[in-house]
Amino acid sequence: MKTPRRAGPLVVIGGAEDKTGDCVVLREFVRLAGGARARLVVLTVASEVPDEVGATYLEVFQRLGAKQVRVLDVRERGQTAGAELVEAVEQATGVFFTGGDQERITNLLGGTAADQALHRRHEEGLLLGGTSAGAAMMSANMILEGKSGATPRVGHVRIGPGMDFWRGVLIDQHFGQRGRSGRLLSALARYPHQLGVGIDEDTALVVQGEEFEVIGSGAVAVFDAGCATYNDVLDRQPSEHVALCNVRLHVLTAGFRFRLSDRQPEFVARTARARRTESKRHET
Amino acid sequence: MKTPRRAGPLVVIGGAEDKTGDCVVLREFVRLAGGARARLVVLTVASEVPDEVGATYLEVFQRLGAKQVRVLDVRERGQTAGAELVEAVEQATGVFFTGGDQERITNLLGGTAADQALHRRHEEGLLLGGTSAGAAMMSANMILEGKSGATPRVGHVRIGPGMDFWRGVLIDQHFGQRGRSGRLLSALARYPHQLGVGIDEDTALVVQGEEFEVIGSGAVAVFDAGCATYNDVLDRQPSEHVALCNVRLHVLTAGFRFRLSDRQPEFVARTARARRTESKRHET
Repeated sequence: MKTPRRAGPLVVIGGAEDKTGDCVVLREFVRLAGGARARLVVLTVASEVPDEVGATYLEVFQRLGAKQVRVLDVRERGQTAGAELVEAVEQATGVFFTGGDQERITNLLGGTAADQALHRRHEEGLLLGGTSAGAAMMSANMILEGKSGATPRVGHVRIGPGMDFWRGVLIDQHFGQRGRSGRLLSALARYPHQLGVGIDEDTALVVQGEEFEVIGSGAVAVFDAGCATYNDVLDRQPSEHVALCNVRLHVLTAGFRFRLSDRQPEFVARTARARRTESKRHET
Repeated sequence: MKTPRRAGPLVVIGGAEDKTGDCVVLREFVRLAGGARARLVVLTVASEVPDEVGATYLEVFQRLGAKQVRVLDVRERGQTAGAELVEAVEQATGVFFTGGDQERITNLLGGTAADQALHRRHEEGLLLGGTSAGAAMMSANMILEGKSGATPRVGHVRIGPGMDFWRGVLIDQHFGQRGRSGRLLSALARYPHQLGVGIDEDTALVVQGEEFEVIGSGAVAVFDAGCATYNDVLDRQPSEHVALCNVRLHVLTAGFRFRLSDRQPEFVARTARARRTESKRHET
């Protein structure tokens, strides 16, 4: 039996979240960070165009009511040991990781003083958010890259250590848009103890304690290979397909909660969060 | 309780089957049709380039040992009532439908004397095969068109009547290659009594009685939404995502059988058919 998760919330976004309309997903991040009293840090470490991406999030978070927003970038490991990033994390009520390349996050932050500060503060309750690469890195094992397609092949995915803020899951992003069910299933065939979570664009999980809730305009596919009765991944060559029997699949939209303890979804649309998402959904 | 299926076998191919190498899938079709004694009819009705497609299958089926191969095309409904097609079906030991547009098959053959002859002869044991569009049309309800993507939206698929040779299933083809899990799930959300069968390229189901076996180099994804505990398709608008909970998913490769009666797979790799496929798999 695992100890219930007591760390701060996570907002794990499938990429390409709305930044000009109702901003359901980013608005929820700001709300959880304290709204007008939020002290946000935007980390552009994953991005190849950090100035542009940083300016975008600075503008949108301020528009959504956050008065204190700092954009910080990391281009080399030396910086992350620096006082500025660590001090910013210490002061923050929410830290947001932008998209880009998830290996830049682990490569430049992993094991640094900033990494330690992020983990300690998160354990104490600090809110973390991330989109695309910033979502992928949340788990202990992350998908580095893979091929699109609906059925799994052994060699269609490459997995490495993530930043380990959310254990027990494997996250994939841009999920529906890029047809990634095959690569997520490939990863789960190797690590069936992990729960596979494929998040569409403009869609997010809000993780709190031992459950998450879905917000945003798309869907989240949850693959549970823990109950699989057959899995031949160890007998297959990289170019070959994997066989898997009796995998459980849930496709969840805004208004669903998912309990990690027994891996079951529950429809709870009448939460305030879901109502906010619903109202947006009906306008589109 | 359904009556066990007593009709002839079906070879349902996900498209782009190997025609120059070991030809595992097409070779099995020829074998089931009687090998050297086979009398094959190739129907190019679905194709926009019937001459080219017909010549290709004529060559490959002859190379695989079939001595009698007739290519027949249908460009207008009048032809299908003609004696030639009906007489060819009466004499055949196997009828093969090429790829193209599945609506051409239903539109030009549906309800004609040839359609009646195909059904009567199939009920008496005639082997039928089809690839791509020729696979899609096998079921009573078929996917006409849809959008790629991994998560389902209500409006992402259009379904219409198929040729009704295989009841109780919804077939999708080019499945892994075109990332079609979302559109098949959309269709199943509406018709959860059907079993969803997504077939990769160069991969086929050999349907006999109340079970099918997988052959070829790819995988077959079987989605069972009959056991779903939540499905909100009726409450959603066409642009919206569908939520589905507790769908069962199997990814099957060569060597698997699937029982339609209790919707469960079984690994039976040591059948002669699977051995032939396995030997090819290990060479690649």
